[in-house]
Amino acid sequence: MSSRLRAQIQFLLEADRLKAVARRTYLTDQSRRENAAEHSWHFALAVLLLREYGGDFDLFRALQMAIVHDLVEIDAGDTFVYDADGQNSKAERENAAANRLFGMLPDDQNREFRALWEEFEAGESREAQFALAIDRLCPVLLNYATGGRAWKEHGVSAARVRNYNLPATAAAPEIQSFIAALLDFAVEKGVLEA
Amino acid sequence: MSSRLRAQIQFLLEADRLKAVARRTYLTDQSRRENAAEHSWHFALAVLLLREYGGDFDLFRALQMAIVHDLVEIDAGDTFVYDADGQNSKAERENAAANRLFGMLPDDQNREFRALWEEFEAGESREAQFALAIDRLCPVLLNYATGGRAWKEHGVSAARVRNYNLPATAAAPEIQSFIAALLDFAVEKGVLEA
Repeated sequence: MSSRLRAQIQFLLEADRLKAVARRTYLTDQSRRENAAEHSWHFALAVLLLREYGGDFDLFRALQMAIVHDLVEIDAGDTFVYDADGQNSKAERENAAANRLFGMLPDDQNREFRALWEEFEAGESREAQFALAIDRLCPVLLNYATGGRAWKEHGVSAARVRNYNLPATAAAPEIQSFIAALLDFAVEKGVLEA
Repeated sequence: MSSRLRAQIQFLLEADRLKAVARRTYLTDQSRRENAAEHSWHFALAVLLLREYGGDFDLFRALQMAIVHDLVEIDAGDTFVYDADGQNSKAERENAAANRLFGMLPDDQNREFRALWEEFEAGESREAQFALAIDRLCPVLLNYATGGRAWKEHGVSAARVRNYNLPATAAAPEIQSFIAALLDFAVEKGVLEA
């Protein structure tokens, strides 16, 4: 067994730990909170499913970003999007996580995976912007489908949900309109605090 | 909201149920069994990570297969690979599941997702063969890392594990050799019954 394959296998085993990183959102059956690994899959599926709303972009690249984007949470944990303190320290914690985790890989793959993660985080390329829109859609959808459970548990208002999600989904206007309408309806139904 | 987007969103919510489909393998921390959604992510990550061992194939297509390949388990459940009765009825159950689940999608995407799933199941294209090899590697790795827990729980012998996994990984010879060596070592350590 080459040292290269050994490093790749070690990384794959380490990546398994993403399945133990809990997010705030609940599954649609409300049996438990979602973890970051299954979210990454659901997100990748949504990118594939909804690509027509992203205009002209490289789907292959966006899928790779979806697969890699949350790996840093193995060390840094999931930072709740409405937690201001957590958001302040997020970049530093995630950067250290990227150094350690991607640093387990052979050099070429360290660079490749890190570049995918950084591109997603920077949110500048069309691929990253569409991926970001879909990454925001997923928890909004699960929150809505679970009667706003995570929103209510954390006392999040409609204004905060709108501020966080609507500008971030501008790269996919139909998705943005859908989220806006869903949030209006959620407020109307009492699922989300006005 | 268009009826097309409505169908896609309904499908995405239905897909969420894959997170509740338990496999036989345990997570490396042994806290619980793995589910099919997080496996799909881990598998997609492994396809991306280990592509150099697959020779010349279309990685983009293989990633799409990894994302879609287990969706039918929402209805058909996970069929344990060493369960002969389950394997006999698997094709019929999964075909019915594909009809219902992919049938929720707009026609063009029904055809697209179904074709990805069928290509993976047929195992004929290079993409499907490499994906299959990696789909086999993942549970072998988790079983080994958890002291053979699922193998032991189900009384699976080394001969059955070899018969099931070695021919299926022929498209990636280095991965096949790695699995063969890992199984030998597992037997030596008493993790897997000779």
